[in-house]
Amino acid sequence: MTQEMIVLKTMNSIPVSAYKSNGFIGSYQELVRREMIPYQHRVMRDEAGTEKSGVFSNFINAGKALRGEEHGDFYGMVFQDSDAGKWLEAVAYSLAATPDETLEKQADELIDLIAAAQDADGYLDTRFTISDRDKRWTNLLEAHELYCAGHLIEAACAYFEATGKRRLLDVMLRCVGHIYRRFIKDGKPGFPGHPEIELALMKMYRITSDSRCLELAEHFINIRGQDPDFYKKEKAAYNWTVWGNDASDYNYQQSSQPVRRQTEAVGHAVRAVYLYTGMADLASETGDKELFKACRRLWDSIVNRKLYITGGIGSTVHGEAFSVDYDLPPDTAYSETCAAIGLMFFAYRMLENEVSGEYGDVMEQAFYNTILAGIQLDGRGFFYVNPLEAVPGISGAAPTHRHTLIKRPGWYACACCPPNAARLISSIGKYAYAENGDTVYCHLYASGDVTFESGARLCCKTDYPYDFTVSYKVSGIKTLSLRIPHWSKKTEFFINGEPVSPVIKNGYAYIPVSDEDEIRLVLDGTPRFVFPSERIHSVSAKTALCMGPLVYCFEGADNSDVISSCVDTKAEISQAVPDKKLPNGVIRLAVKGYIREHQERLYSCEPPRMKHCDLIAIPYSLWGNRGENAMRVWMDRA
Amino acid sequence: MTQEMIVLKTMNSIPVSAYKSNGFIGSYQELVRREMIPYQHRVMRDEAGTEKSGVFSNFINAGKALRGEEHGDFYGMVFQDSDAGKWLEAVAYSLAATPDETLEKQADELIDLIAAAQDADGYLDTRFTISDRDKRWTNLLEAHELYCAGHLIEAACAYFEATGKRRLLDVMLRCVGHIYRRFIKDGKPGFPGHPEIELALMKMYRITSDSRCLELAEHFINIRGQDPDFYKKEKAAYNWTVWGNDASDYNYQQSSQPVRRQTEAVGHAVRAVYLYTGMADLASETGDKELFKACRRLWDSIVNRKLYITGGIGSTVHGEAFSVDYDLPPDTAYSETCAAIGLMFFAYRMLENEVSGEYGDVMEQAFYNTILAGIQLDGRGFFYVNPLEAVPGISGAAPTHRHTLIKRPGWYACACCPPNAARLISSIGKYAYAENGDTVYCHLYASGDVTFESGARLCCKTDYPYDFTVSYKVSGIKTLSLRIPHWSKKTEFFINGEPVSPVIKNGYAYIPVSDEDEIRLVLDGTPRFVFPSERIHSVSAKTALCMGPLVYCFEGADNSDVISSCVDTKAEISQAVPDKKLPNGVIRLAVKGYIREHQERLYSCEPPRMKHCDLIAIPYSLWGNRGENAMRVWMDRA
Repeated sequence: MTQEMIVLKTMNSIPVSAYKSNGFIGSYQELVRREMIPYQHRVMRDEAGTEKSGVFSNFINAGKALRGEEHGDFYGMVFQDSDAGKWLEAVAYSLAATPDETLEKQADELIDLIAAAQDADGYLDTRFTISDRDKRWTNLLEAHELYCAGHLIEAACAYFEATGKRRLLDVMLRCVGHIYRRFIKDGKPGFPGHPEIELALMKMYRITSDSRCLELAEHFINIRGQDPDFYKKEKAAYNWTVWGNDASDYNYQQSSQPVRRQTEAVGHAVRAVYLYTGMADLASETGDKELFKACRRLWDSIVNRKLYITGGIGSTVHGEAFSVDYDLPPDTAYSETCAAIGLMFFAYRMLENEVSGEYGDVMEQAFYNTILAGIQLDGRGFFYVNPLEAVPGISGAAPTHRHTLIKRPGWYACACCPPNAARLISSIGKYAYAENGDTVYCHLYASGDVTFESGARLCCKTDYPYDFTVSYKVSGIKTLSLRIPHWSKKTEFFINGEPVSPVIKNGYAYIPVSDEDEIRLVLDGTPRFVFPSERIHSVSAKTALCMGPLVYCFEGADNSDVISSCVDTKAEISQAVPDKKLPNGVIRLAVKGYIREHQERLYSCEPPRMKHCDLIAIPYSLWGNRGENAMRVWMDRA
Repeated sequence: MTQEMIVLKTMNSIPVSAYKSNGFIGSYQELVRREMIPYQHRVMRDEAGTEKSGVFSNFINAGKALRGEEHGDFYGMVFQDSDAGKWLEAVAYSLAATPDETLEKQADELIDLIAAAQDADGYLDTRFTISDRDKRWTNLLEAHELYCAGHLIEAACAYFEATGKRRLLDVMLRCVGHIYRRFIKDGKPGFPGHPEIELALMKMYRITSDSRCLELAEHFINIRGQDPDFYKKEKAAYNWTVWGNDASDYNYQQSSQPVRRQTEAVGHAVRAVYLYTGMADLASETGDKELFKACRRLWDSIVNRKLYITGGIGSTVHGEAFSVDYDLPPDTAYSETCAAIGLMFFAYRMLENEVSGEYGDVMEQAFYNTILAGIQLDGRGFFYVNPLEAVPGISGAAPTHRHTLIKRPGWYACACCPPNAARLISSIGKYAYAENGDTVYCHLYASGDVTFESGARLCCKTDYPYDFTVSYKVSGIKTLSLRIPHWSKKTEFFINGEPVSPVIKNGYAYIPVSDEDEIRLVLDGTPRFVFPSERIHSVSAKTALCMGPLVYCFEGADNSDVISSCVDTKAEISQAVPDKKLPNGVIRLAVKGYIREHQERLYSCEPPRMKHCDLIAIPYSLWGNRGENAMRVWMDRA
């Protein structure tokens, strides 16, 4: 990457309301609206049939405590308030696309409870308002006050954007004022144990132009790691703990050194990518090239050495964290859904710094594989952990595999991933489209209608990711810029049926267009085998099957024994008949391979006898929807 | 196995002094004598240049405490006394083979210290004699009092056998008397958290015929798991803990149900096989067929579903424990050296119940691979953990691989494996030879001279495990019974040069012999590829190279990149030129294979380009002696 490529704020994102989805994206947005948002509302209200969460009751009790009324105890995890933020954010995005009076009323009611739980000085966190007020801001390492504030700030921005209502925005501006006084005016040392508020403050700054937001975001980003021993000193000064986190594990919360000097993605993966997102956001907003370079190094560390083929990150259960380079085991993968979501955030913010196809490629990789794998087809079960291999009897059972469940559990009372997925999916338009003057960027192939702030309009039609023709009708646009994914070996462009050869730069095609033009993009989505670097020792000599952005997997539901089978990468890949248990339009792939005969002895001198067989693969994101069985992404090769 | 095969005490073991080693076994016994025993003596005495252990000083301080003198604190782990036991046992076996006045004096001095640390009531454990006397016997789950007593009982038996000196034997008989009064006469409930005393008591019973030993062993074996909640009740009654062990983790210490009903090898692997050894011992001594059947089920559980090809057991670092069936990962293997030693104990005791070749096969598998891998060639470094794959940058570094070191550390102050290996190696004659009337059994091919109690004699000459001809000269023997290992596809027998075809039953050849006969056994040690069951998902489609009892591995010292390489199992296996950095006589094997070109991208659509290459393998037990590099047992197949 050359210096010249660094451009301050390459493009402007669109508001969520600008994109009306249909097709593949539309069906997932519908699932969020129909199943996930109502379900989480019931969970947060502790309704019958759900696991107790205490989210609503915490806000109610905090309000009572502030008014001096009798009240109940705080319930749940120290970061329980953040669930309210994530739900409100998903609701806001959903309302932006599809107005819904009942839902808006439910959101307004929650916002009233939140407002009533805010202290006179602007402080807002139910855990330390209901009781333990003396513990406010004493344990930044563990107490998640800044993290919860961040999620509520994001919710406030989203709700204001969607409904024009300022109530939550004003509440959170007062909260920001409180934090600003503490950390800037009063000079309280420290930075968030769990980054999140940085990116939230950047969102709020863009909406409100309140300079305190920018200043605070910059402060938290720049002070991080300046004093690596900060948490040790903090711990020495207080005498309470949430989980007994190790204050000297600098890597866990990315505080071993100032962020501008960091070169390797380490520690808790969600914390890491939330931090990097805030950094990239600040870099594009302020033109801070040094900070962008740090982001770029951390990006390279992830995508070149620590990224699963499924777009998952954070390979180890120990600390839900990044491991060392090339340690990407398939069967013990952690690969948290939230971490893949955070990687999408980071990728998108990088794109705002630099127009390069790799960012969109990674957004797709994470979205179509790990993020969607997190959600059961009926919207009622969720994977937090996304292994690339499941073995009945071992996955979820062996001590090293307890975290790799073979079936999606329901929504937990303490849930990070499901509401995170809900807000991501319902705001996907923001990641798909952007504008810069009279140029419109299409980062993702998202079927639907888009109305830009400039008045330009675009109508995208596609059955992507199962079909690779994408057509656009445009008006008010001079240049249509389309990302060309790295896997498309031969890409064709047509304007009103006539082939054209646009300029392609850094993975984007720039196509001059006129009103009412029909632009057709034909990607090469031929199914392909993918081979891992030999440095990933755990999958040496294996192969994965992919089609377009989709990673495929081989599951017991379609095959007699995937662990005993190997694929012939030289034979033809064809489409198999659809499975009625999977949604309409899902393409199953068929490949040739061999299956070995059962060997009774643990170890035998006889080479296993192999028989020809047909093997069938489905998209990785859909595994585990047809009963509990074995699943493998990385297959042995014949 | 049919009922008829169960025979009460199939054979009698020989005393250690009966076998004078030479050849391969001799060189390891020499290493123990020359390096390991003196080194551990220095460690136990806290001599300069060693890590502090406190073993001697604990006994000294306990003696002072008993005499009411001023004294220092207890130092080290709660089971620190056991190191003295294991060292004395190794010394005894060494003295039995090779008298050494200085060493015997050192042992006698330690025995004096131990005797002086015994309380008037027979209690002997420095941890609760130096202080906390009120805590005696209050925490059987963690406090290791019975475990330490067991090791000192074993030492007492060995030292009496080797030297005829009764001092330690009498001390430990008094200690047994104390335990007997507590647990039998006073009816104190409970059983050892860490089994060990059961097998020790059986040894002592055989030497002293003291029926209390048998009764106590039987008691601890039979009461185990009768009340699975015992440890929970115990924990509720005391208010101290050593490590905070979970009293409800019944499997960890094999107490979920009575041992006669147990069917699956579970929990801490060393605890498990020590327990099973005691059970098999009791079964053969008392003809308890029900107990033997339980042992057989547990044996099957191990060897059919939970055994590494290297003879290692306990695949998971979590609790140093057995995992679920078929969970035998190569790179994160725990496979503790002590557990392989314990498996040899168990196998040998099974052989005393039932003459069957599989027990000797497993003894060899554990001994020649995992146990010897535990010891550095210079006797100054030791692996506790024995992975089947090492990857620089990941092994010892990734959070899931912290325990799989790539280099043997020196002797720790708190060391279980090195002294355990020392006592095993110096007593290997016991495992190699046995007698039953005028039949002599050869379970292992151990070069050297044997004198049996009957007066019979045998001289074995062989370069095994690098040569597969074993010759015996005999006198006073009517039947020579030789184990025929499962891997020998064609085995030849000669008497005085003439081929013979002896009766072969359950893996043993029974050869009628006369005085001065020279019997020659020629095993088929042709190198072979071995293939794992398809149920071991972590090594599906891989292969290992073996020769005789030796598992081979491919190491970076001999190959350019073992992780990038795959072997051609159809091509010829030949001998490579010896490596001067390895001991004389070690055979390196050469196989044909392919190595892939380096792939820069993490994931690529281009199939990796493969080049022909020669690959060289060395015995697994010798890996890690030529610098830190990659190592692989299970290789990808071309």
